Amino acid sequence: MTLDLETARTIVSAARAHGRDNGFKPLTVVVLDAGGHVVAVEREDGSSTRRFEIAHGKAHGAISLGLGSRALMARAEQQPYFIAAATSAVGGSLVPVPGGVLVRDPSGALLGAVGVSGETSDNDEAAAVAGVEAAGLTPQVD
Amino acid sequence: MTLDLETARTIVSAARAHGRDNGFKPLTVVVLDAGGHVVAVEREDGSSTRRFEIAHGKAHGAISLGLGSRALMARAEQQPYFIAAATSAVGGSLVPVPGGVLVRDPSGALLGAVGVSGETSDNDEAAAVAGVEAAGLTPQVD
Amino acid sequence: MTLDLETARTIVSAARAHGRDNGFKPLTVVVLDAGGHVVAVEREDGSSTRRFEIAHGKAHGAISLGLGSRALMARAEQQPYFIAAATSAVGGSLVPVPGGVLVRDPSGALLGAVGVSGETSDNDEAAAVAGVEAAGLTPQVD
Amino acid sequence: MTLDLETARTIVSAARAHGRDNGFKPLTVVVLDAGGHVVAVEREDGSSTRRFEIAHGKAHGAISLGLGSRALMARAEQQPYFIAAATSAVGGSLVPVPGGVLVRDPSGALLGAVGVSGETSDNDEAAAVAGVEAAGLTPQVD
Repeated sequence: MTLDLETARTIVSAARAHGRDNGFKPLTVVVLDAGGHVVAVEREDGSSTRRFEIAHGKAHGAISLGLGSRALMARAEQQPYFIAAATSAVGGSLVPVPGGVLVRDPSGALLGAVGVSGETSDNDEAAAVAGVEAAGLTPQVD
Repeated sequence: MTLDLETARTIVSAARAHGRDNGFKPLTVVVLDAGGHVVAVEREDGSSTRRFEIAHGKAHGAISLGLGSRALMARAEQQPYFIAAATSAVGGSLVPVPGGVLVRDPSGALLGAVGVSGETSDNDEAAAVAGVEAAGLTPQVD
Repeated sequence: MTLDLETARTIVSAARAHGRDNGFKPLTVVVLDAGGHVVAVEREDGSSTRRFEIAHGKAHGAISLGLGSRALMARAEQQPYFIAAATSAVGGSLVPVPGGVLVRDPSGALLGAVGVSGETSDNDEAAAVAGVEAAGLTPQVD
Repeated sequence: MTLDLETARTIVSAARAHGRDNGFKPLTVVVLDAGGHVVAVEREDGSSTRRFEIAHGKAHGAISLGLGSRALMARAEQQPYFIAAATSAVGGSLVPVPGGVLVRDPSGALLGAVGVSGETSDNDEAAAVAGVEAAGLTPQVD
């Protein structure tokens, strides 16, 4: 069970709408499947050059360790050397601040992850959550 | 001048429609801006795990060297060591087979690149070309 | 849908038994899930130091591109520069000789991949096929 | 002298049993030989995608520096720059939290290392220790 492209498009669209409705800066939204592979990406006009890589790192860190990126931030504050080591172990893409959210179906099965970057980390996370909920799925932020 | 997200979405949508209309296997479409950075990606259901990386390598190789990936294939057949070296020099993402197409505006200005993967290389390229033309822009395949 | 650990253990065990019954050299067997992540590995006594990496590369190449590694060998013979580029694009682990086999369920859904290394490539593939069949699943070698 | 596959299988099996008996989350167990090369791996259903890489990093860090990963954590807290540098020097796989345990025979000879990931670090280590002791060998946690 994984995240199909139509669901991913719904998540991207609703996350962007949340940003627009709340006056956020331009967002980049990345959706990964349960294996951690890219399904859909949109980077809004005015985003800086590497926002894909930042948003990807939030989602990829989350799916790699099975935790929302807010939990990875807590771990980074307690044990920065663990997060540095895990980043290296997973190949370099792990960004431990809010905005990387696991996606679960109503039964709790893990479908994938969403990463958002462009605003404050809290607002990035809110956009990701709004996207997941718009698809009728359950976000896990930590 | 670069490729905005709405144009990128049009290219992705039209490339996918070309595949659907012609009975292609599932496609992955990546659009990069003039700086070589990701603007939009969609990976269709049934694509293998790393199709994003392959499609990205076609587009990234094209924008990196200013040539469509068909020209990179010709160069690989003549001087494989040059393409191997260039792949390393650009950071690892350069796939020298057709399907990576430069995007130019009517005046010839370079706006970005599109990469498609999933079918035969020739069909991948045809989908990329269809996507660019649907946006009223000019594809460059070699 | 993916490959659970018990199924992976059955595949490893049966692939090894095939090798033993046929007088093969020591084998290393790697099973990956549908996302390309390690589920189970066994490296038999007498295997050389890096057999895990070779067997992993056969399975990882297969799942990354959605083809058995025998098909990757055919492509490498026609377009060595494509396989070199794909290896780089997927992060370095892609070994294009037989012995990397896709695993499908009876309905054709992709569950994962098996990589075997230690004997001739043809024998490695035969062991992988035997392992997959022993689990009641369908191997795809090209 | 090194760790043979049957011993490695015993360690994996007993570490997993320890987790099951104590209600741990799904575990991933990696056994390396005295040369630091993979002998056996099992990743339990429900583990996140990159648990192999994390468990591997605990064991690989331990065998690389000749210390249990608990000692590597102590060093990381005192000199994070040393652990960061060592991680890079050993090729990227070194995770300095408990759960990476050296394996010695009764005479004290070093046979290999075990890495466990999935639960708290202390519980990961307890599972690794249980696995090593079940094989009649001596664990070294720091």
